[in-house]
Amino acid sequence: MINLEMLRQINATANFNQWLGLEVDSVGEGEVTLSLVWREELGQYSGFLHAAIIGGLIDTACGFAAATVAGPKVLASNFTVNCLRPAVGKKFIVKAVVVKAGKTQIFTTCDLFALHEGIEKLVANGQTILTIAS
Amino acid sequence: MINLEMLRQINATANFNQWLGLEVDSVGEGEVTLSLVWREELGQYSGFLHAAIIGGLIDTACGFAAATVAGPKVLASNFTVNCLRPAVGKKFIVKAVVVKAGKTQIFTTCDLFALHEGIEKLVANGQTILTIAS
Amino acid sequence: MINLEMLRQINATANFNQWLGLEVDSVGEGEVTLSLVWREELGQYSGFLHAAIIGGLIDTACGFAAATVAGPKVLASNFTVNCLRPAVGKKFIVKAVVVKAGKTQIFTTCDLFALHEGIEKLVANGQTILTIAS
Amino acid sequence: MINLEMLRQINATANFNQWLGLEVDSVGEGEVTLSLVWREELGQYSGFLHAAIIGGLIDTACGFAAATVAGPKVLASNFTVNCLRPAVGKKFIVKAVVVKAGKTQIFTTCDLFALHEGIEKLVANGQTILTIAS
Repeated sequence: MINLEMLRQINATANFNQWLGLEVDSVGEGEVTLSLVWREELGQYSGFLHAAIIGGLIDTACGFAAATVAGPKVLASNFTVNCLRPAVGKKFIVKAVVVKAGKTQIFTTCDLFALHEGIEKLVANGQTILTIAS
Repeated sequence: MINLEMLRQINATANFNQWLGLEVDSVGEGEVTLSLVWREELGQYSGFLHAAIIGGLIDTACGFAAATVAGPKVLASNFTVNCLRPAVGKKFIVKAVVVKAGKTQIFTTCDLFALHEGIEKLVANGQTILTIAS
Repeated sequence: MINLEMLRQINATANFNQWLGLEVDSVGEGEVTLSLVWREELGQYSGFLHAAIIGGLIDTACGFAAATVAGPKVLASNFTVNCLRPAVGKKFIVKAVVVKAGKTQIFTTCDLFALHEGIEKLVANGQTILTIAS
Repeated sequence: MINLEMLRQINATANFNQWLGLEVDSVGEGEVTLSLVWREELGQYSGFLHAAIIGGLIDTACGFAAATVAGPKVLASNFTVNCLRPAVGKKFIVKAVVVKAGKTQIFTTCDLFALHEGIEKLVANGQTILTIAS
């Protein structure tokens, strides 16, 4: 199984993840937790976390969760994101789990929390369908 | 109606869009075209355009298209993205249109093209549901 | 709050739900469980539960869950369904919960189980965004 | 390629489609048009076309469009539906097209129109991801 060290290496090879400062916090079979520290550069026009980053966190967490059951060669074919509350916080934590791993497709689901004034709030959720690259 | 100059000003107030180098190319009633020049920093682990950027382009184009019919105070509540082909190119062009503008929700759809070796290819599509912030 | 008796009355006013034989089993604040007994007429070309029925169960359960927090005048604006396994069973149980109830939109999520040879299996999941009709 | 006669035969083997009275009107490479005549039994609690039927029309049209390029053994793994306007009419017409046919997944998109008082109105749209059953 893919372990924490391996996911951190994969994370380090993605240029955008490096620019983002995305951290892999924990990994289990079919689940991962990632985190990201807020900075101004990540904002949309109201100063909330940009939808690109929200979607990117959900897609990446789902991809890493899928990798723990299907190996690193997984590719997202669809992801869908619900923006539930303004994504405001000094840190963001994203938790993904595998719902079903089939032969050609892996279904995952994900929650994104903002840590704001000591409280962790669900600000977005989503799901990703991944295929195993041949 | 919101014109090209106004969308460019909104674009300039979003820190992440500025870092990205996102350009507003054209605007009509209920439609916009944006573009982005590729650079290494935007890549995922295989060097393709990162899903965060794919989702961000689709979400932003849909938001700008919605703004042309409902004003600038629109917020995405849901967006969904299909990754159709590897997003490889030296430039990306994203075109969004409004499908239905209701009293509280605006439905939009979007295509993302990669310009690669002189050919424009559809690499992703998606849709966004926006609400009008009160 | 809307109780079991009220949801059963709403269910009885929907012609298609009556034809389907859909049952409201339990209701809590922001959650419901519905069930449906299999019969041949509900099948697609392989004899599995038809996607229309899968989607209809998910949409209806999400709508009923939303009604428990926002009243009966809720309308689905978007629903998305993942078909995880062949939907085969003699009974289907669908459980929906409200994830976030906002002023204009309610976000819900849902799991559909098939009861087959004494085992309850997750065969589909999905989510629905509802608006409050004015 | 799968022709009109073959799609009508597949349609005739799906029990639910037969109950529904779903008609295959036309077929091209990567596209189909289906239609359905309204009757009371298909209604939800306000008397509009039930979301189950809306989703079922979209899923079926997308599946038939996919079958024209990938053969009859296609299975929907995900479908998403936007309910744009009240689905009221005496007839419903659903048009699906294939956006991308890959080796393991087929991406489709679909529009659902209601024919009401002589006017054809877009009442829903959606998309389906299908896999090729092995």
